[in-house]
Amino acid sequence: MDTGVKFLFGPWSAAHLETIEQALSRWVVAHAPAGLGEAMRYAVLDGGKRLRPLLVMAASEAVQGNPAAAVRAACAVELIHAYSLVHDDMPCMDNDVLRRGKPTVHVRFGQAQALLAGDALQALAFELLTPEGEEVPAVQQAALCRLLARAAGHEGMAGGQAIDLASIGRDLDEDELRQMHRLKTGALLQGSVMMGAACGRPDPRATPALSVYGAAIGLAFQVVDDILDVTADSCTLGKTAGKDAAHDKPTYVSVLGLERSRTYAQELLQQASGALASSGLQDTRALQALAAMVVNRDN
Amino acid sequence: MDTGVKFLFGPWSAAHLETIEQALSRWVVAHAPAGLGEAMRYAVLDGGKRLRPLLVMAASEAVQGNPAAAVRAACAVELIHAYSLVHDDMPCMDNDVLRRGKPTVHVRFGQAQALLAGDALQALAFELLTPEGEEVPAVQQAALCRLLARAAGHEGMAGGQAIDLASIGRDLDEDELRQMHRLKTGALLQGSVMMGAACGRPDPRATPALSVYGAAIGLAFQVVDDILDVTADSCTLGKTAGKDAAHDKPTYVSVLGLERSRTYAQELLQQASGALASSGLQDTRALQALAAMVVNRDN
Repeated sequence: MDTGVKFLFGPWSAAHLETIEQALSRWVVAHAPAGLGEAMRYAVLDGGKRLRPLLVMAASEAVQGNPAAAVRAACAVELIHAYSLVHDDMPCMDNDVLRRGKPTVHVRFGQAQALLAGDALQALAFELLTPEGEEVPAVQQAALCRLLARAAGHEGMAGGQAIDLASIGRDLDEDELRQMHRLKTGALLQGSVMMGAACGRPDPRATPALSVYGAAIGLAFQVVDDILDVTADSCTLGKTAGKDAAHDKPTYVSVLGLERSRTYAQELLQQASGALASSGLQDTRALQALAAMVVNRDN
Repeated sequence: MDTGVKFLFGPWSAAHLETIEQALSRWVVAHAPAGLGEAMRYAVLDGGKRLRPLLVMAASEAVQGNPAAAVRAACAVELIHAYSLVHDDMPCMDNDVLRRGKPTVHVRFGQAQALLAGDALQALAFELLTPEGEEVPAVQQAALCRLLARAAGHEGMAGGQAIDLASIGRDLDEDELRQMHRLKTGALLQGSVMMGAACGRPDPRATPALSVYGAAIGLAFQVVDDILDVTADSCTLGKTAGKDAAHDKPTYVSVLGLERSRTYAQELLQQASGALASSGLQDTRALQALAAMVVNRDN
């Protein structure tokens, strides 16, 4: 599906990351009352790979979507991801003190402010998706809110976290583990792809193909996360390594072993590529590059 | 503004409460994974005055709004209210063990599940506002999400809670106290009214009048809450009485004294009534009755 124009992921990614960082910095307001804005910005800015926003942008471009909608959707997804990390790090959850190489939000601002900052980031995500004026049509606003709410809620990320919580110290088989991760991390990654797709016109061939692509990279992301948890050090990861094993959490590595986990990640990359090939979309090279990045990353 | 048909608040309220309870029970799903649905239902069902949903329904009827949109908006607002109570009761916030006469969610299900249930309830609120199909037009879906996100977020409820957090043990003057409550409880009450209004056609006369009405009852609600915190007992309130004083939190009673607080609540009721009279709407009797209920309630 080469369009004849050479595609370089580095410059593509750099340009889009700059757009995303600027938009996040503009929209995550410092002036929110009583230190709340400061905690929200700390949770969101200057950190993270921005994988989910890049997936939104890549999917939107593949379907020739509305760029104004795409940048809002990209930021909204990142706010949901950021809030989930803030809450997940809290003492009553994972009790983690290090995130992206910095003290976690509750360590820096206190637990109460961390709780509120997470809550406010979730609300802000939906606010970003519903601007007044003509820039994003109401049909797109509604579709984006619908996709994000489902990906974040009890049938998505929050549901997966509940399974995760209930699984500590229990043996899960491979199917249960896949179900947990399909929700916990997969739903929001797949949701990012589908939100990008929702920035364009409905396409009965491309949409299901992108859904398969999103599901495959969502699962691959977690498989690779589990591999890195045992093979990388905390410094490379920017967070505490080995914590799943320390918490006696089931992982792909604990269920499948390291080598089969690596093979599985490559199989999922093939699935994602196959879905793109069948999508009928002209240029899916950014999506292809992002899938490879998910599987071959070292942090 | 009598339409000639006698209006009785009791039957009006009972019929709408039944609709709301049934809808909440249908939409707050028990099947969410790993006990999450159970915690969500516990947080939402069988309790509460449902003031916010009733405000949505009353405002929607006053503007002859779309009933399908109104019942979704009513439930969405209640889910936001319910999630805020779950998080607010947690040990890192108010550390309250009793709510609506029952153990709080974190006491019953543990802190981690309470945190997740609150997060999932916020997402579910936006999911309810964005159904597929034709029952709620996309323009209404987008407007309702916009209003709810703003009312719940850093410029609304969450922002007010941050001010509240920062105010413990500090002296606030009346203006600061009003600003705190305008956000903390007022934004969602006013938001309920505006969401009801958004279920109808835009009306340049009624909308600002309903906004003034919503702001007045939002403030009145908090003034009365502060009065009840010192005059009622825990059994009548269904929650721990006297806790603001115990936490050294500034209240209307501590700033204005009890008698001036009571007078102020009546003045706000007058403001709300005046706004309804100027709205140009034919039948605002349910809204009028709800304003009186807010000011004259004993729990």
